[in-house]
Amino acid sequence: MSDPTARFAEIVGDHNLLTGDAIPDDYSHDEELTQPPQKPAYVAKPATAEEVSRLLVAASEGRIPVTARGSGSGLSGAAIPRQDGLVISFERMNAVLEVDTTNQVAVVQPGVTLTALDAATADTGLRYMVHPGELSSSVGGNVGTNAGGMRAVKYGIARHNVLGLQAVLPTGEIIRTGGRIAKISTGYDLTQLIVGSEGTLALATEVIVKLHPRLDHAATLLAAFADFDQVMEAVPKVLASGLGPYIVEYIDNMTMAALIHTQNLELGIPDAIRDSCQAYLVVALENRTAGRLGEDVERAGELLASLGAVDAYVLEGVSARKLIEAREKAFWTAKAIGADDIIDTVVPRSAMPKFLAGARGLASAAGGAAAGCGHAGDGNVHLAIICKDAAKRKQLMTDIFALAMELGGAISGEHGLGRAKTPYFLRLEDPAKVALLRRIKESFDPAGILNPDVLFAAGEA
Amino acid sequence: MSDPTARFAEIVGDHNLLTGDAIPDDYSHDEELTQPPQKPAYVAKPATAEEVSRLLVAASEGRIPVTARGSGSGLSGAAIPRQDGLVISFERMNAVLEVDTTNQVAVVQPGVTLTALDAATADTGLRYMVHPGELSSSVGGNVGTNAGGMRAVKYGIARHNVLGLQAVLPTGEIIRTGGRIAKISTGYDLTQLIVGSEGTLALATEVIVKLHPRLDHAATLLAAFADFDQVMEAVPKVLASGLGPYIVEYIDNMTMAALIHTQNLELGIPDAIRDSCQAYLVVALENRTAGRLGEDVERAGELLASLGAVDAYVLEGVSARKLIEAREKAFWTAKAIGADDIIDTVVPRSAMPKFLAGARGLASAAGGAAAGCGHAGDGNVHLAIICKDAAKRKQLMTDIFALAMELGGAISGEHGLGRAKTPYFLRLEDPAKVALLRRIKESFDPAGILNPDVLFAAGEA
Repeated sequence: MSDPTARFAEIVGDHNLLTGDAIPDDYSHDEELTQPPQKPAYVAKPATAEEVSRLLVAASEGRIPVTARGSGSGLSGAAIPRQDGLVISFERMNAVLEVDTTNQVAVVQPGVTLTALDAATADTGLRYMVHPGELSSSVGGNVGTNAGGMRAVKYGIARHNVLGLQAVLPTGEIIRTGGRIAKISTGYDLTQLIVGSEGTLALATEVIVKLHPRLDHAATLLAAFADFDQVMEAVPKVLASGLGPYIVEYIDNMTMAALIHTQNLELGIPDAIRDSCQAYLVVALENRTAGRLGEDVERAGELLASLGAVDAYVLEGVSARKLIEAREKAFWTAKAIGADDIIDTVVPRSAMPKFLAGARGLASAAGGAAAGCGHAGDGNVHLAIICKDAAKRKQLMTDIFALAMELGGAISGEHGLGRAKTPYFLRLEDPAKVALLRRIKESFDPAGILNPDVLFAAGEA
Repeated sequence: MSDPTARFAEIVGDHNLLTGDAIPDDYSHDEELTQPPQKPAYVAKPATAEEVSRLLVAASEGRIPVTARGSGSGLSGAAIPRQDGLVISFERMNAVLEVDTTNQVAVVQPGVTLTALDAATADTGLRYMVHPGELSSSVGGNVGTNAGGMRAVKYGIARHNVLGLQAVLPTGEIIRTGGRIAKISTGYDLTQLIVGSEGTLALATEVIVKLHPRLDHAATLLAAFADFDQVMEAVPKVLASGLGPYIVEYIDNMTMAALIHTQNLELGIPDAIRDSCQAYLVVALENRTAGRLGEDVERAGELLASLGAVDAYVLEGVSARKLIEAREKAFWTAKAIGADDIIDTVVPRSAMPKFLAGARGLASAAGGAAAGCGHAGDGNVHLAIICKDAAKRKQLMTDIFALAMELGGAISGEHGLGRAKTPYFLRLEDPAKVALLRRIKESFDPAGILNPDVLFAAGEA
């Protein structure tokens, strides 16, 4: 095609196209730990779906690889561009277009942050419940990675909270999928196919998200367990109790120590208990009345005690908020203590003890360590991997992922594969499935321009 | 290929292959009202995924159209085979393989009925919550149509309750998708792509479904409203109340009269109220304690009164059960009163008054009538269409679907398109989207053998 710079500039305007040295370093990476940053050739900041469409048509013609970017807070390197590529940054498409209380949805542009969306819905009594740790993340990023977070145990993941999209195909067509409706059985569900596709199939330019009632009263229990397996055995009992917790997290003792230390937490856990406990369970409850919440908290406390908790604390407002915030920042804590890579594997809840024991054993056999916390209710395990030797670490990661898959799990629960985990995926996944995914990819993106290093390219882990 | 009869018989055994006159009429139709039955050339009853795989490989080679069949209770004609085709009936693959209380899932074969699954989980305190009116329907059919039903307003539709599949591609590969896990972000979500694909992409041979706790206490309120629009305005308020109803249905006065008459219902509604009311709202609540349920019922009653209900009745056990069962049988009531076709359109909840007024106006202008009930919480409207003239009726259906789409809705909320609604879909849907769906279809089914008259063939409505 004609000079890409001129063509892209003509589409988005000179001010909204960056090239060469004018591109800040931020556009060359996300928050993933292992992959080298790569500065793209172009950064375009479109304002409309039509501009996105014209950019994609131009890129398809010129076979220029395209990487979509929201807030850049991803943890798998799905927002690391190609050096010869175009970054489409949604930073200007960051409006909450409508909060529709009758249908209990919000219609937003992909660049809107969770913080901004929460502010826009605050007065309506409704809320978007997908809540990954990083609230600067964008809704478009949530769509790309099928984000999860702590509240997923009650409210589901992005997949369950994204009802419709306006999306642009790499060939330029602007389509609408789903709508302000929670059910639909009219052709293949393109919304659900695009959610979690990490920018490899189509780019969302408008997102219809589900809103849930905000309940007025909430409380957080922290239960200490002497034995790690007891925590895992308690989880299904808590979930089957009918108490409907919106958070069920485990934190191992190493991670709790690091959180307390790096975040200056004061949780009031006596030293004797901290010293004798292998792990903690965090259970948060909510209700529309204070009275019912009080009853539920009491019942949960009794239940946790009957399941072997050494002690269970009801955390007061500030402590509860701080603990949850510290847990949300677990990635930064992992980074601060020198983690060399992270894992967000998901396994059936029942397989968590076996998986965690296995992962720790593998790490220690490789001369490293694995510690973490996770969404216990969902079987989603976050591990910080410490293993300085790169070759050993890659083998260790492969072995841990293989173990998860053997137990009926998958490589990523909520971060996505990105560039970083794609090589493991290609090594371990059923080739018939990978071939099918590739054919689906081609049905959307015949020129192969959308995030070509993610899901299919067998790069370096 | 060599003689298909011999080859199919070799795969499933002579006893499990029917041909010619030995094929009972049942295999030539489902419960759809307008499409002519078609007797297939072959009916095979496989016992394993491997047999399904071999059948599909043989059919692909011979370009023999394949239609999967569960219980045959579908309402859109997705189970009507081709005359030269093969029906793969899952009647022998009807086992509950495992009820896994720790992970709160059941692993079942596709032919299992909802009644059988409910019985298998009864003692565990857990339940599969997808609840279409017809409990003889199969889980495989639920997967195919993305079934909904009355409890969807709280528990979601099939899509939200199917966590994983074993599925056979038309090219013979047996793949596994998802698992005993509620969250996953590892490649495109094939589970969600296959759910709702009406047997056109792959055949499920094992289904992992989510189970929820059974709550012990439930009550049903029936509220009568003088004005239809008041019912619709009440719905979002009921949903935003935090009461968490598991059923929110509306029933118009014509349909209520037909239900009462055909099902011998005794609901204790005074004649004066029945005569003056345009529509009813059914709200069912549940709780883990009787005390809380009582409080919630009281609060819901007050709320309904404040929203304009002329009266609200708390139905006692038997009446409540009978009303819900009668509502579940609304299709049979529609059939009994001579409906010529049915519609299960979905629109945004806020658009229901406009849609219903519009649909009634269109029906009456065409010399027909449209009456019904529906999943008010989900915007899923079930209309019985009475219009004897076939050409006028097809135009009327087209106009009603076009109106629904204009209002942001879709042709089917939970029945699927089948053979019956596919022609409308192809007439009204964005051609760019249809072309994309077709490419996705080809990525699964290059020989085009799976249910070729559904979603893509522009047959006769």
